[in-house]
Amino acid sequence: MTTYNAPVEEMMFLFDHLKDNKNYNEIEKFKEINSELVKDILIQAAKLNQEVIHPLAKIGDEKPCIYENGIVRSPPGYKEAYKKFINEGWTSLSCDPKYGGQGMPKTVSTFFEEMLSSASLSFKLYSELSIGAYNCILQHADEKIKTTFLPKIVEGKWSGTMCLTESQCGTDLGLIKTKALKQKDGSFSLSGQKIFITSGDHDLTENIIHLVLAKIPGSPEGTKGISLFLVPKFNVNDDGEVGTRNGVSTLSIETKMGIKGSPTCVLNFDNAKGFLIGKENKGLSSMFTMMNLERIIVGIQGLGIAETAFQNSVAYAKERKQGKSNNNADNKTDAILKHADIRRSLMNMKSIIEGQRSLAFWLSQQVDVSLNHPNKEIKKEAEEIVSLMTPVIKSFFSDSGMEITNEAIQVFGGYGYTKDQGIEQLYRDNRITPIYEGTNSVQAIDLVFRKVLNNKILNKFIKIINNEIDNNQSNNDLKNFSNILKKNVKTLTDFSNWLEEKNKNKKDDVSSACNDFLKVLGYISLGFAWFKMTKVSLKKTNENKNFYEEKINTAKYYFEKISPRIESHYNSAISGSESLMKAKFN
Amino acid sequence: MTTYNAPVEEMMFLFDHLKDNKNYNEIEKFKEINSELVKDILIQAAKLNQEVIHPLAKIGDEKPCIYENGIVRSPPGYKEAYKKFINEGWTSLSCDPKYGGQGMPKTVSTFFEEMLSSASLSFKLYSELSIGAYNCILQHADEKIKTTFLPKIVEGKWSGTMCLTESQCGTDLGLIKTKALKQKDGSFSLSGQKIFITSGDHDLTENIIHLVLAKIPGSPEGTKGISLFLVPKFNVNDDGEVGTRNGVSTLSIETKMGIKGSPTCVLNFDNAKGFLIGKENKGLSSMFTMMNLERIIVGIQGLGIAETAFQNSVAYAKERKQGKSNNNADNKTDAILKHADIRRSLMNMKSIIEGQRSLAFWLSQQVDVSLNHPNKEIKKEAEEIVSLMTPVIKSFFSDSGMEITNEAIQVFGGYGYTKDQGIEQLYRDNRITPIYEGTNSVQAIDLVFRKVLNNKILNKFIKIINNEIDNNQSNNDLKNFSNILKKNVKTLTDFSNWLEEKNKNKKDDVSSACNDFLKVLGYISLGFAWFKMTKVSLKKTNENKNFYEEKINTAKYYFEKISPRIESHYNSAISGSESLMKAKFN
Repeated sequence: MTTYNAPVEEMMFLFDHLKDNKNYNEIEKFKEINSELVKDILIQAAKLNQEVIHPLAKIGDEKPCIYENGIVRSPPGYKEAYKKFINEGWTSLSCDPKYGGQGMPKTVSTFFEEMLSSASLSFKLYSELSIGAYNCILQHADEKIKTTFLPKIVEGKWSGTMCLTESQCGTDLGLIKTKALKQKDGSFSLSGQKIFITSGDHDLTENIIHLVLAKIPGSPEGTKGISLFLVPKFNVNDDGEVGTRNGVSTLSIETKMGIKGSPTCVLNFDNAKGFLIGKENKGLSSMFTMMNLERIIVGIQGLGIAETAFQNSVAYAKERKQGKSNNNADNKTDAILKHADIRRSLMNMKSIIEGQRSLAFWLSQQVDVSLNHPNKEIKKEAEEIVSLMTPVIKSFFSDSGMEITNEAIQVFGGYGYTKDQGIEQLYRDNRITPIYEGTNSVQAIDLVFRKVLNNKILNKFIKIINNEIDNNQSNNDLKNFSNILKKNVKTLTDFSNWLEEKNKNKKDDVSSACNDFLKVLGYISLGFAWFKMTKVSLKKTNENKNFYEEKINTAKYYFEKISPRIESHYNSAISGSESLMKAKFN
Repeated sequence: MTTYNAPVEEMMFLFDHLKDNKNYNEIEKFKEINSELVKDILIQAAKLNQEVIHPLAKIGDEKPCIYENGIVRSPPGYKEAYKKFINEGWTSLSCDPKYGGQGMPKTVSTFFEEMLSSASLSFKLYSELSIGAYNCILQHADEKIKTTFLPKIVEGKWSGTMCLTESQCGTDLGLIKTKALKQKDGSFSLSGQKIFITSGDHDLTENIIHLVLAKIPGSPEGTKGISLFLVPKFNVNDDGEVGTRNGVSTLSIETKMGIKGSPTCVLNFDNAKGFLIGKENKGLSSMFTMMNLERIIVGIQGLGIAETAFQNSVAYAKERKQGKSNNNADNKTDAILKHADIRRSLMNMKSIIEGQRSLAFWLSQQVDVSLNHPNKEIKKEAEEIVSLMTPVIKSFFSDSGMEITNEAIQVFGGYGYTKDQGIEQLYRDNRITPIYEGTNSVQAIDLVFRKVLNNKILNKFIKIINNEIDNNQSNNDLKNFSNILKKNVKTLTDFSNWLEEKNKNKKDDVSSACNDFLKVLGYISLGFAWFKMTKVSLKKTNENKNFYEEKINTAKYYFEKISPRIESHYNSAISGSESLMKAKFN
């Protein structure tokens, strides 16, 4: 079985030394969230995740959810753990105190998301979409709905889902068939079938609050005629407690490659009572409130699982003895950690993980600013950066999670392929992350067409990186890194100019370049994150040589060994789309 | 469930148009193996693999091997299929007619290996190591052993294993503990425990012939004191039939990520009777006869699984309708095959698969020459090329198999993650190929230190590529491709010079560059393969426009979109090993 130790020191490094940001500092309510408080929270979170939740990962894989007679049962131990989880208040961490939340910033809650992903993705998914539902209801529902549903969700007694996909429509939501008929009392009656619904049914909470996309008859065709509805599993009485069963039933659950402890349901809505959230036909944009924050969290899932893979690989490499390294001194068999090639694998993992954690922290700050800053313009700017980086975090982190769990299996050799070690499970569990909440290709298309070409947000991000480089021109220790970063930013600029040009009359060139562009932006963002970490580490070296020298060394690894990938993606992309469009695939 | 159609046309294209090779043509016994005969064989093989064997893939995954009371039972249907398999003579395909074989060249049997890998890797593994054992016995055992064991193995009534790994030693075979004590009758008594033994026990054959590495007490330390023994599950009577049970028992089978229809056994040898194969203490080099051919076949496994993933992805992409492509004409939802990014994924798969099939065909010829050519020098030259390319085929093809099965899951979206479709199984089944028969990192180290640095074989391969380029200088249609290939060969040369230089006093630089070097050589070899296919296709276009134009187009894709990866590996590698060797991993 895998072990997990929450990287509290790494997280506190970010919170203590990379938090200084003018806009974030201006958010009144976060001024009291100090280092000591955050450390206390992280230590408690670590304890729960290490001791209670991590053991559930293997249990869920070996004893998956069961569907029987219309009822879904969670794996053994999940109920008890969930009870502890909500009793300790973890579902409420980042929620509004008005509805019982603790009001923590994303800078803090993102650390918790990572830990939970490291501990057990299956267990995490039971509460994850509740927070998505919370955000959506908070921003788009009327006050009555809010006061009825939010406190229970925040408390964790009720959970949430998002119901988008139907068998004929995944990416293309314009094809939705689920119908919503308006009733005399102002509510709606929903009928249709939804598939791939994470936590669509289970036995951990008293009630499940479905947020459902459906069409009101007579509304416009395609995505412009989709509305969003809140449909509870159990109707809610006037006293706020659960009442009769609503017309939602579970037809089956999927048998999957991984996340077997999480039920993926086919739900049938048969004249189910629902309430409109937001305006008619504006459902998709309301749902995107939920989707966008979820997409960032999916990226964090990849990061969290990668962290567990990395920790266990290092531990195994220290313990497993095999062969003699180049520097073997005593002619005895070396631990494989001594072998250069194993170290390369581990450094690949380490440099990507620590870079991504830092990037995620920075983006969490932008989310906090986008949600809470008093100045509208600053808020909007942050929103733009978040919208640019959301597909990057989602896709790049989840893909990296695959690369890292894959390398971890190799470090374990034959043992990595057996179920006992738990390493192959990380790989299987993570394999959903490049798919759900919009496949990584869809993210890449969203990034390029919507954010880069239509909204021209990229230049704002490039400016942020260039400022960072320019402000440190005089720092000779950073010279090597800033030179590489500069060169990479030049490639990014060339790439986006190429996209602009091709978008005029060779759209297929653009479409087929999206994935490569996302990767390029991802690696450059990591370079940006490493640049900032290095700057701090150079200053602080004497305070904790061991910690900061390792950071600087890892940055060096990143710039030298990982960033060359950027040119390869760029060169592949700009060769165009002629051959792939011409292919017949007979 | 997946479907599979054996790519007979693709295979016959290679056999008919890329077989012309002076050395190969000089092998007397293969002169009668003509196109018609091969096509007949492939069509029969296709029928068996498509109809009988492919359905076993899913069955084996859902109803894995069972270990109960010391006995291993294969999944339902495997026994019946195996009977048909040996009745049709498939185990004997490439074996020596002297022992009942059909004497087919590797150029033909490799196609069969690919088909079988595409159909069901688990089923394939029952017979695969028999051929390995056959080769090892054929080359190293005395005549009595040969006549006793080979006919039964060739016939498929007895199967074979290779027993190397013990819990404390995988890569580092010097750590082997299994002991072999010489008996008065000249036989040996073996005691010890072997793990990860593929097909170590099962119910498909009457007897199982283990080839076991063990130490004779008093022999030298490390790998220089290892001998090879033949240890049958059942002792063989003087009449050649199975007799009493030998002292080999099965302690358990592994629960694995994939290839669940294939039993991976822990075998206990308790005073088991064995026969020395080859000379005392020379066991490792004898075993490598088996290992080297096996390693090529593991590469072919990756290719075969990738082919199934590709075929199913194309079929799904033609059928699944979602969104509108850039070239949408009728405002109706398009099949996802119309989307540029999906086409890019499919072309990644296609260009790698067809390139690898062609490269494998070329290497099979080299194997045939190395085993059969009358001229010793020519034989040795071919042997060298085979030894250079063996780690490349093993690692590069198996890694590509991961990339391609991964892309296939993405094409299928959420459906790709469910067990129903069978796509995720391809990914899990293939995940063993980068591990077994020596992990891919071990292959890369073997390639660089043994083949490139010690034996200087690389230049011979570079010369072959350069000749190919030079001989086609006047062909203007090939100009673009030869320019790219030339540039890539330059990188390969620079890379190997860098390795030579660093090997003098910075061995860690070399060790940490091995994986990248293997990738570089792999991609260039594919370029070489595509170059030759293009040359033929340009000549033949008018004979079958549809087929040959698609080939030329796919070559274009390969050179433009895939080969840029080469520079990235090179640049990453030559940055050296300082940061990774310095890392502390505290």
